[in-house]
Parts: sequence; structure tokens; C-alpha cells
Amino acid sequence: MSVPVPVSVSTAVSDSPPGVGVWLIGARGSVATTVVAGRAALTAGLHTPTGMVTETALFTGTGLPPLSSLVFGGHDTVDCPLPKRAEALAAGGVLPHGLPTAVAAELAAAEREIRPGGPLPGDTRGPDELISAFATDIDDFVRRRGLTRAVVVNVASTEPAPTGSRPERLAPPGAALPPSSLYAAAALRAGCPYVNFTPSTGLHHPALAALAATSGLPYAGRDGKTGQTLLRSVLGPMFAQRALTVRAWSGTNLLGGGDGAALADPAAAAAKNAGKERVLTDSLGATPEGETHIDDVPALGDWKTAWDHIAFDGFLGTRMVLQTTWQGCDSTLAAPLVLDLARLLARAHEASLSGPLPDLAFYFKDPLGDAPTALGEQYAKLAGFAERLRGHGVGGPEPREETR
Amino acid sequence: MSVPVPVSVSTAVSDSPPGVGVWLIGARGSVATTVVAGRAALTAGLHTPTGMVTETALFTGTGLPPLSSLVFGGHDTVDCPLPKRAEALAAGGVLPHGLPTAVAAELAAAEREIRPGGPLPGDTRGPDELISAFATDIDDFVRRRGLTRAVVVNVASTEPAPTGSRPERLAPPGAALPPSSLYAAAALRAGCPYVNFTPSTGLHHPALAALAATSGLPYAGRDGKTGQTLLRSVLGPMFAQRALTVRAWSGTNLLGGGDGAALADPAAAAAKNAGKERVLTDSLGATPEGETHIDDVPALGDWKTAWDHIAFDGFLGTRMVLQTTWQGCDSTLAAPLVLDLARLLARAHEASLSGPLPDLAFYFKDPLGDAPTALGEQYAKLAGFAERLRGHGVGGPEPREETR
Amino acid sequence: MSVPVPVSVSTAVSDSPPGVGVWLIGARGSVATTVVAGRAALTAGLHTPTGMVTETALFTGTGLPPLSSLVFGGHDTVDCPLPKRAEALAAGGVLPHGLPTAVAAELAAAEREIRPGGPLPGDTRGPDELISAFATDIDDFVRRRGLTRAVVVNVASTEPAPTGSRPERLAPPGAALPPSSLYAAAALRAGCPYVNFTPSTGLHHPALAALAATSGLPYAGRDGKTGQTLLRSVLGPMFAQRALTVRAWSGTNLLGGGDGAALADPAAAAAKNAGKERVLTDSLGATPEGETHIDDVPALGDWKTAWDHIAFDGFLGTRMVLQTTWQGCDSTLAAPLVLDLARLLARAHEASLSGPLPDLAFYFKDPLGDAPTALGEQYAKLAGFAERLRGHGVGGPEPREETR
Amino acid sequence: MSVPVPVSVSTAVSDSPPGVGVWLIGARGSVATTVVAGRAALTAGLHTPTGMVTETALFTGTGLPPLSSLVFGGHDTVDCPLPKRAEALAAGGVLPHGLPTAVAAELAAAEREIRPGGPLPGDTRGPDELISAFATDIDDFVRRRGLTRAVVVNVASTEPAPTGSRPERLAPPGAALPPSSLYAAAALRAGCPYVNFTPSTGLHHPALAALAATSGLPYAGRDGKTGQTLLRSVLGPMFAQRALTVRAWSGTNLLGGGDGAALADPAAAAAKNAGKERVLTDSLGATPEGETHIDDVPALGDWKTAWDHIAFDGFLGTRMVLQTTWQGCDSTLAAPLVLDLARLLARAHEASLSGPLPDLAFYFKDPLGDAPTALGEQYAKLAGFAERLRGHGVGGPEPREETR
Repeated sequence: MSVPVPVSVSTAVSDSPPGVGVWLIGARGSVATTVVAGRAALTAGLHTPTGMVTETALFTGTGLPPLSSLVFGGHDTVDCPLPKRAEALAAGGVLPHGLPTAVAAELAAAEREIRPGGPLPGDTRGPDELISAFATDIDDFVRRRGLTRAVVVNVASTEPAPTGSRPERLAPPGAALPPSSLYAAAALRAGCPYVNFTPSTGLHHPALAALAATSGLPYAGRDGKTGQTLLRSVLGPMFAQRALTVRAWSGTNLLGGGDGAALADPAAAAAKNAGKERVLTDSLGATPEGETHIDDVPALGDWKTAWDHIAFDGFLGTRMVLQTTWQGCDSTLAAPLVLDLARLLARAHEASLSGPLPDLAFYFKDPLGDAPTALGEQYAKLAGFAERLRGHGVGGPEPREETR
Repeated sequence: MSVPVPVSVSTAVSDSPPGVGVWLIGARGSVATTVVAGRAALTAGLHTPTGMVTETALFTGTGLPPLSSLVFGGHDTVDCPLPKRAEALAAGGVLPHGLPTAVAAELAAAEREIRPGGPLPGDTRGPDELISAFATDIDDFVRRRGLTRAVVVNVASTEPAPTGSRPERLAPPGAALPPSSLYAAAALRAGCPYVNFTPSTGLHHPALAALAATSGLPYAGRDGKTGQTLLRSVLGPMFAQRALTVRAWSGTNLLGGGDGAALADPAAAAAKNAGKERVLTDSLGATPEGETHIDDVPALGDWKTAWDHIAFDGFLGTRMVLQTTWQGCDSTLAAPLVLDLARLLARAHEASLSGPLPDLAFYFKDPLGDAPTALGEQYAKLAGFAERLRGHGVGGPEPREETR
Repeated sequence: MSVPVPVSVSTAVSDSPPGVGVWLIGARGSVATTVVAGRAALTAGLHTPTGMVTETALFTGTGLPPLSSLVFGGHDTVDCPLPKRAEALAAGGVLPHGLPTAVAAELAAAEREIRPGGPLPGDTRGPDELISAFATDIDDFVRRRGLTRAVVVNVASTEPAPTGSRPERLAPPGAALPPSSLYAAAALRAGCPYVNFTPSTGLHHPALAALAATSGLPYAGRDGKTGQTLLRSVLGPMFAQRALTVRAWSGTNLLGGGDGAALADPAAAAAKNAGKERVLTDSLGATPEGETHIDDVPALGDWKTAWDHIAFDGFLGTRMVLQTTWQGCDSTLAAPLVLDLARLLARAHEASLSGPLPDLAFYFKDPLGDAPTALGEQYAKLAGFAERLRGHGVGGPEPREETR
Repeated sequence: MSVPVPVSVSTAVSDSPPGVGVWLIGARGSVATTVVAGRAALTAGLHTPTGMVTETALFTGTGLPPLSSLVFGGHDTVDCPLPKRAEALAAGGVLPHGLPTAVAAELAAAEREIRPGGPLPGDTRGPDELISAFATDIDDFVRRRGLTRAVVVNVASTEPAPTGSRPERLAPPGAALPPSSLYAAAALRAGCPYVNFTPSTGLHHPALAALAATSGLPYAGRDGKTGQTLLRSVLGPMFAQRALTVRAWSGTNLLGGGDGAALADPAAAAAKNAGKERVLTDSLGATPEGETHIDDVPALGDWKTAWDHIAFDGFLGTRMVLQTTWQGCDSTLAAPLVLDLARLLARAHEASLSGPLPDLAFYFKDPLGDAPTALGEQYAKLAGFAERLRGHGVGGPEPREETR
């Protein structure tokens, strides 16, 4: 099923270029574990970089930090160490068997850089104290490891949508910050680019708007587009371009693992579904009938099945139906995108880009700013972004390895 | 299921603009019948132009001939008259019940302009005689009806691929012309733009290459992209843009009706599948494993079910699967595209465009010339084509009706 | 799509055997309309009795009342008359086009026998008054039409499950009777056999238990098994008999029409899902993980799509998946079963059978009494029931027509 | 994904009951490897016997030989040794990771009992010589290992159907015996019960008919029912019992591995499909429209996807559709059935049963003798068979282990 994995791998990073930090919020989760183990597998030559767009010809000569230069750390509120988590993922078929052993050193190294997240129950620290503590952790990581910069990426479980049906953008500026926003604020305070790979609030909070605007830092989000919404971002435009009328678009997602349980909470599911629906509304010009369910099915583990049923009208009102069934592994769909985004944000920071990066809409369900909805157009924007990066030479030979 | 249909419809065309001919090869088939009945339903206000891209904002101000100006005629080798055929389609759920009665006058008018096709068994005329006879039929149609021009559109059943596995482009110039090429040559001889909506050879024959090149006429083809291949033209690019590796792409098509029977002939199916495969190979950069079956299932009538199973690899070699099931009605998927193409080719002719029109790749499985494979890029090309048409003003207020 | 329908049909019923009444609760709904129109189509020879088990060889010689002897009436709270409702169903593709016209006389005859149901808002009558009024309507119907007997069949929309999560069987005897129970009580009072084709409470109320037990009348229910649960009743046993371990069984139902809207009410859906789940729990010996959704999708009308995803373990814990997609028309799935049940209960009454009839479990999601869960075993029970009916000769030549 | 597997397992078989031989034709194939490794995993307590019907309560007290008493050997024409084959299966996800190591001793023991099959190219031995050689191998195995008896089970790749379209039952008695029949004849000559788990000819050859009839040995077959046909054997009866008319039943199977390649040969596929079709014809009473494809898709390895599309008519001719998608692993579906059958045939031999055993139709696509088609009825027959075995006491405490 995968490239044979030697029992142990020596990973000489001593003469590598200056390190670039990737600080993961949710650093002991499935996605983070797959990111750390996967990067190690790639640099050791155990696997090809399937699913990483930054390793395709599109990004040749764009000065992205080499994969081998990435240094991982992060926050988490759970205790299960990365190596153990990796073993569990391998047992569940998410990571190739043998990989946790082969990259044990890298997993242990990342584990050593994980700091306690929060707030945990009983924690009496106020928001500002927490932000400071988190920012100090990141600063310390950058300084101790001698990194040129670090990118903060939120890959934690989806947090419930703000109470009530009131969208967070309307919340009063003084409202309590959800944890994802505390971490986002810490990223700004530590001077780090920020990526929100989840539907949680993050930087998208009115209390952080002014701070983000004046930070001079680039940021991107929200909610990585890994499966059902990826499909919808090509199917929606297809119907629209062909002038076919979508009457109803219904969907059911089955998944176990942490995300399944988190999204069994209706408030968390609501946050997730808002992004899913936006894709349909934007590409079809109207919100079709139909619901989208997210079911927690522990038996499926990290594997996700998404069924979509699309009832549409053709010429003369003929009723037709398209159904899709997507069976994928969420963590391995997300991990290459997280690696892409960490590299892209690091390079954007180096090139002094700042503010939201709508050119990265390709990666998100609910992209920031004014961005196209169709995947093809998003890809064209991404190509344009690559071209912009090429224009920002960094005065030296590009050190990026070529694993593809 | 559809807009209520009054028992009878008066269609005043007396003060309409000069007529534009649409000469259909296979004029008594399901697609042609749906084209004629559907156009009548639209101009009578019985239905909205779902599925017609030329009725969307993309083509505003491009000077396309109004739908009401189209005048239908054509060749066919079968005898069942259009009104009877329309009744059969309504009984099978392809046309709305009541529509054949409501547009009886238009069906009868088109029926009067159908001439015998060929060659039928026992016909001793040589190729040149046949071409001349066909061209005379078209000339006569244009002259008698006072048309400014006519577009010839092949919507006949798929003809078997040339004998052997040798592609037709390698056939010696003197090889016998298949019927579709006889009709295509007649179009050129009659000075008409030509559209090949089928995978048959048509103009794509070495014996016609020079003639086509010097004709000064625009032409487009091949093989209308109505279902499974439409889907593939958005899903293939999605996998490629996301750097996911497609291992196998398998498909089965179930359909009855005339096309099901024609494609049960392996040679005809081969012609059809070549186009389907081209989409995958072009968008993925390699031909994946997997076969595509076309089964004749008379019980399904004109309804087609297409199942696709796509096995792909994600990050770290994780195996994932996407399945799609498309249930559509081939005739009502094809008809609006045929109307689009007739209008586009008529306008191209008016604007003195000539040669193959790769900008119309949006409509075809196996487009002519150097054209992109991804539907989104094809749509962008189509938009560019619309822009070019706007540049070719025709000196007068645009008479196009607005049905949308 | 269907047998050609003559414009008008003469239905000589003058010399038919004594009539048997079928009193439908929800007499103007989709199911009832399909029952009335369908019976008329069969006796007129317009269609074959597809879906009617009582018309197969299994029931030869069992003395069932002939289809032509059935006389329809019923209660409803809506006003739309049957002929108009039939037209709407034909427009939606549920009834064949032309059928409402062809059987207009029978629709009108049934319409004349529909009496107002209740209680409607503002109705101040108490339960006993309502029961009496309903029973009087039925008595009057039987007497006026000279019927040997009448069977009451509940085909009304699903009523919300009793408040709270407390199952109705635990409700105190004096609790308010839901409408479905008022009608059921009226059936008993009128001395009529009773069929509950819905998941509503009906006779299944503690306040009616003693009455039902001493009534001497046969009754059957609950909740006709027409689609997803029919499938589950063969797939569940398959997994059990093959000793395969079902880990999770998830399902989504999409349907519009009245039932879709009714089941969008979580309480009504809960009533429906209890029956669906019982099938799985009984056949698998344990309740698997997974939810079952019922979505109201008005665009689908009376057509229902049910998707099931079954994750199961094979030998050595190998994970496998079965998915099913069922696309059916609820009304035409239900109608032949309703005709079957009306005939079976009428014959059971004639044969002096009384109490619940678990031998009819074949027809129900949540059968009464001690009945097998596997469809095959239920079919065997039904065959045994047919045999019992054969033993109850009625002393005369069997008048049943042979339409198959 | 599976029960944790210790690094090594001590399997004390010294004090086990007298051994029963299982002689596998195709002893180094996927199925055989899974049988050997799976039995070892069960007796070591590493897995529960999912998929083995003989380990359910149905067979309590029937005197089947204990799993631990089975001793494996067999013929094969390929060289790849069992332990290596097991590693390949584990890499492909068919066997749990770690299992080949954990049961290395058992794999090696079975490997030592594998003898060369034939005839290989260049082999000049005639049929009788080959049969003698094979029978001697089996005799030798039984004697050397001190077995009470041995059951021969054909689990080799499907062999092409006899030339021409003439079914083998009509072949002249002197016709050349295909390899599967040579092995079957050897089983008879060695006095062994025989199971044909494939669609190959085996005992089903006119030249062997008399021999089989007078052998006094029990035998069973043909073609293990593991996936699509298993489903069809419950869905076909469902449609029949509900009097729904199946119009077309179409199917596509995608599979890689050895079987995928073997069945890419149209003659082999024809053999396979005959059994699949028989199920439909027998249960529906007529052969519906539609084809069944078997595609070789190497990327899928031993995993099989089977899609079925069933177009059926309901009441009043309403057109409905059921689709099923089965994703399973052929080897792990087959292995528990092979273990079941080996035990059942051994016990039948002990109980002096002889001739074809139609009571085992539960296991086969194309069962011998007069057997029901519906799985439920086949299960009832199997239960009756178990009851018969209970009647054949063997005069001592039953030694069967209880792993469930």
C-alpha cells in the first residue's frame, strides 16, 4: 500500500538552511501528527509529496523555504505524546505501518517543543495573561531554535460557533475571546504569520480586527478544503457554467476520530456547515434546498465518507440527479495543505506581504477577502501568487530541495 | 414537474428577423426532436432556457441570432415523423407531457423540411453524387425559406469507428468516406458552417482536410460533452491541481434508446470512448488504469446512468476513492447545447470567422485544435469568444429576445 | 413508461359481488389517491398489479375479496378533492399521465364518500364525541352502500411521537388520545378491522388496549415497510447469517411531499426512526452505531432517495463497506400494500380471526406481536397465513378475478 | 484496525485431537494464504472468528472437527512461498500488519506440505498420470501426518470456461480434462471429500460423473458466494416476494490481484458470470436486461468494488432504481467460508454422507443439485444440515473449542 519503510532513518539536518518554525495549535492532534511524520517521511525519501501543491512545477523558483528547514512545535491541551499518537494513527491505517518507528526521532523532537495550551478548567488567568503566555512560548521557540521566523497554524478541533445564532463578526468588541482567538492574538503579539485551518473564530473576531490590520503580518484562512467542499467547489461552478438549475443539494458526512465527536456538537457543526454552504451559494448564485449532516461514527476512525445528492433541472425542466461519494482520510488530506500553507506564509512574511491573502482561497472553504469560489479560478489566483513570489528575489540561490 | 402547458400556442413569427437555418443530420432522432420542440417551447414562453449558455449574461450584446429566427430542416434515413417521435419522447418522460401537442405546428413545419439521408442499402450513387444531392437539399432549403445562412449540425447516431484500430487521421486520402463525412462535405459544398456533435468522423477525414482548410467556413466539434465527460472535465483538473495521484478511473454507462443500441457496437463505443479517455489523459497527464463500459439497457430509454469509480492516492500513499453517479436524460442535456452551437456558428459565419473554433471546446469531449481540457478554462475561452463577437458589430440594434 | 391509457373507461360494477368497504384515514393524501386510482386502473385492465402480493400465486384460492368489490371512503382534514389531487400526482410523475382522466368516475365516487376528519383547531368536541362521530360516518358508509364489511386503514401523515421521550406504551391510561387513536377507536366502535399503515399511535395506546383485546376484531400494523426498511429487512439478516459484524449503519432519507414536511418535525421523525432501528437491532442482535436522517426536500416531491452506509468487519477484522441508494416513489410503493392489507383484513374478518395478526409482519416496519424480522421468514409466515385462509372456506365459488 | 498482534505466538498443538487434512488446490494463492494465516490467528486467540458460520450457535454440538485440528497442505503451480505471500497480503492491507510474523511457524508448516501442481508447459504426462501423481501427493500427506481424513478444496484462479459456448455438461465424455477436473479426480482417487470454491469445472465434467456417483464421497460447490452474488441472493428474492418487476440488473466489478487478471480473460469471466446470472434468473423467474462486467484494476489489489444498478417497476409502472456498492476484500470474505466448508465436508465424510450436498447452497453462487436460491432459505437448509449432523453422534465428548 505504500513505499517500503526502513526500520530507521538517519535525518541529517545539521547543514540545512536556517530553520523556519511551524507552530501548530492542536499539536498533538491527528493532522499535526501527520504533518510532522509526513514531512519526515518526505525528507527521508520514503514517500513522494502527493497532495502538496508547493512541490509541483507551479512553485518552481518561488523561494519557498525547503521542507527540510521546517521546525515543529506548538500548543495542545491533551497529553498523549506525538510518538504514541502516531502509533495510534498507524494502527488505524492513517499513517503507513512502520512510519512512526522510522521517523521516531522527528516525532520526539517535535514533542519536546509542545507547550500546554489553554485555558483548561480551573485556569484563572485572564485573556491577556493567556495571550502573553502563549506568545512567550512562541518567542522562546523561535529564539532557542535560532529560527528566521515561525508561522502559527491552527489545526485544533473545531470550536463551537459563538453562542446564539449571531455571527461572530457582529459580537461586541469586548466580548470574551474564544480560545482560537487567544492563540491568534498570541501569534500577532509574537510577530508571526497566522493560518486558520479550522472554522473556529481565530483572527476573525472584532476585538482583533484592528490589531490584525496594523500588525504588518500576512494571514490566511478559514477552514481547510479537504473533501466534500473541495468537490463542491468544482461541481457548483460546473452547474452554473452550464446554466443547469440546482434544485436541492443534500449531504451527509460520516466520520469518527476527534473531529467526528467535536462536530457532533451542533454548534461546532454549524460553524463547519456555514463554510460548506457558502461555496454553494456563491457558485450557484442562490442557496439550494437541502441539508448537510455531520455524523459522529467512531467505527470509521479518521476515515470520512461524504455523500452528496444534487437534484438539478435540465432543459425543459427535466429532473436529473448527480450523486457523489467521497471516501478519504481527513488527516492525510489536510497535512499536505498545512505544509503548503506554512511554507507559503513564511515566504509571504519574508517578502513583506501583509494582511489577508485571498490568493490562497484555493486552500479554504471560507476564504478571507474577495476571492473566487470556483477551484479553477482559485488555482489561477494561486499561480499568480507564485508569480508574485518569484518577483521577490531573496538574493541567493534557492535552496529548495526537489522531491518531485 | 414542469411549467403548465396550454393546449395550443400561437407562435407569431411573421415580423421576426431574417431566418437562420439549422440543418440537422439525424433530423428525426431524439436530440433533433428535442431541439425543435424545445426551441418552440422557449419562444412560446412555456419554459425557461435552462441549460442554454447563450441565454446567460455571458452572451449579452454578442449579436447572436434570436432563437425565434431559427428555421429547422435536415436529413434522416428513418421515416418516423417528428410529431410522432415527439409523442414517443413525451411518453418516455423526455419531453414534458402536453408539449408535442402545444408545439405541433413547429414540429410539422420542421418535418416538412426533412429530406432523405443516405446512402441506404441498395443505393448505387457514388460519394460525389451523394454529396451533391445533400448539398442541393441544403441550398434549396436556404433559398426557399429566404435564410441568411444555415448551419449544419450532425446529431445522428454514432457511426462505427473506421475499421481496424487505425485512427481515421491516418487513413489514406482516397479511402471511402463514411456517411458522416459525406454530410460534412455537403455542408462545405453548400457554404455552411458545420458542427459535429457526435464522435463520428465528419470533417475529421484526411480526404476533407484541404477542402475544410480552404473553405473559409467556421466549424466545430467533436462529440457533445453532456454527462460523464462533463463531470470528468471538472474532476480530472481537481485531482491534478491538488497534486493527488489518480491510480484508476473506471466507468460504466447504462443507456437505452437509439444511442444505447448504437454504442452496443464495440466499434461505435470505441469512437465514443476515445473522447472520454482524452479528457482524463489530458487533465491528469497520464492515462490511469480502468475501463469505460457502455451498456445498452433498453429498459432505461433515453435516460442514462453513468457510474464512475476513481481510486486515488493522497499524502503518504493513502488510498482514497471518489464515486459519482450521474442520472440524466441525454436528449435534454444535448438539445440546449445544439441550440447554443447553431447560434454561435451562425454568428461566427456572419463575423467571417473561419476554420476550427477551439474556443468552443467547452461543448465537446474531443475538441478541435489546441484547447484546454479543464471546463473552467474552457469557459474562460468561451467568454473570450463572446467578447470577440461583441467586437464584430453588425450595424443595428441587437434583436435578440431576452427569455432569461 | 406505462400501458397506454384510453381517454375514458367504462367500469361496469353492477353485477359485481357484494361490496367490501375500505375506509381510509387520510383519504385525500397521496397514498389514498394512488390506492383509489390504482385499483380503478387495475380493474379497467390498464395496468398489471405490480407490487401486489395478493395477486400472486401465493394467494390463489384464499377467498380474498375481488379487487373490483372494494368500495372506498374515508376521513380527511384537508379539502383538496381526490380528482384534483390525482392531477397533481400525475403532474409530478407519481401517477401515469392520463390516468386521472381515465378513472375520473372512480375518483369522484370515492370523493363523495369522504367525511371531515378532526379534531380541527377550534373543535370543542371531546374524545368520545369525536370517536362517535367518526364511527357514525363509517357505519353510515357501510349501510348506505350495502357493504358486507369495511376495513379501516390509516394512511394519514405521520403524527408526532407522544411528548417527551416516553414511549406511548407507558402513558397513563387516561392520557389524551392522539387523533390516530381516535380513528382507531372509531374503527372498533364501528366493528371494523383496522390497519395502521403509519408509525402513529393508533390502536397502540394503553387506553385502547382492553377495548382492542375484547373487540373480536382483527388488526394489523404498524408503519408500512416500503423502502429503506424493506432493504434493511433483507440486508440485516444477510450480515447476521454470514456472521459478519456490522459496526455502523447510517442512513439519510430525502423526500418532499407531505411526508417530507411532516417528518421534518423531529418528533414525527423519531416515531418513524424507532421502527427503522428496530429492524436493525432485531436482525443484528445489537444496535450498531450510526444515525438515520429524514430530510424534507420539497424539490423531490413524492420521490424518495434513501442512502445507507453500512460499515462491517469481515474475517480478521478487515473493514468493508456496503452502500445502497434507493430511489422510489413512496405512494406507489405503499398503494399496492394498502390494497393487499385491506383485502387480507377483510378476509380475516370474514374468517372470524381476531386480535393482532403478526403473520402480516411482511408488510410492516414495526410489526405487532411476536414476528420474525427477516423478510424471508416474514414471507414464509405470510404463506402460512394464506394457507390458513384456504382452510376457512366460504362455501361458494371464489369470485376473485385473475388480473395476473 | 485489528486486535493487537504480539510479536510471536506459541501454538501448542501437541495434545490436540487427531488431525484433519485440508488440501488446497491453489495453496499459495491469496485465499489459501488467508485461510492458513487466519486459522492460526484464531487458534492463537488473536482474532474472533468473524465470518465463520460454523463458529456460531447454529453449529453447537454438531461434532465438527475443531479448528485447531486442521492440517494444511496442497498443490500449486507458482513458487512464491506462503510466508512471503502473507507478507505481500499484509502490505496490501488484506492481512493485519504483524500477523505474518506472529503466525510464521504455521505458514512455514503449511508451506512444507505444498507439492507442485500441473500440468505446467512442457509436461508430457497424460491425464491419468497426472491424476495419479496428485492423488499420491494427497495420500502421502494423510499418511505422513497421521490424519483421519483430508478434504480437497479448490481455491485456484478461475480457469477459462470450456471452449466454444457449449456448456461443459454437454461435452463428450472423452474430452480433455481441464486442470481443475484432474485435481477433482485425484481427490476421488485418494478417497477425499471435495469442495469446488471456484467456477472452474472440477467434478462437474461428464467424464467424472459416474466416478463421483459411485465414490461414496460427499462433495460440494460451485463458486463461493462472497460479494455481489451474496447481495443478489437476498435482493433478488426481495423483489420477487414483493411482486416488483425487475427490468434491468446491471453490474460492474472492479478488482486487481490474481483474480482480476484471470477474469480479464473473457472465457474465465463467462464462467464466473454464469453463476451470477443464475441467481437472478432463479430468484426473479426471468433473466432481466443488463450486463455484468469484471474489470482488472491492478491498483485495487485484493480489494473488490461491485456496483449494481437495478431498474425495477412498481405499481402502475412507476420506474424506480436501487443501486448498491460493495467494497470488500475477496480473500478475507472467502477464507472463513473455506474453513467452514472444510470442517463441514470432513464431518459429512465422518458421518458417511455421500454425493452432492445441496444443503450447503448457502456458500455457493451455483450450487449443486436442487437447492433454493434465496439466502434465507439456504440458511434454513444449512440449519437442517446441522441438525442432521447432530444426529450422527461420534461417541465421545465433542472436542470443539469455543472461540466465540
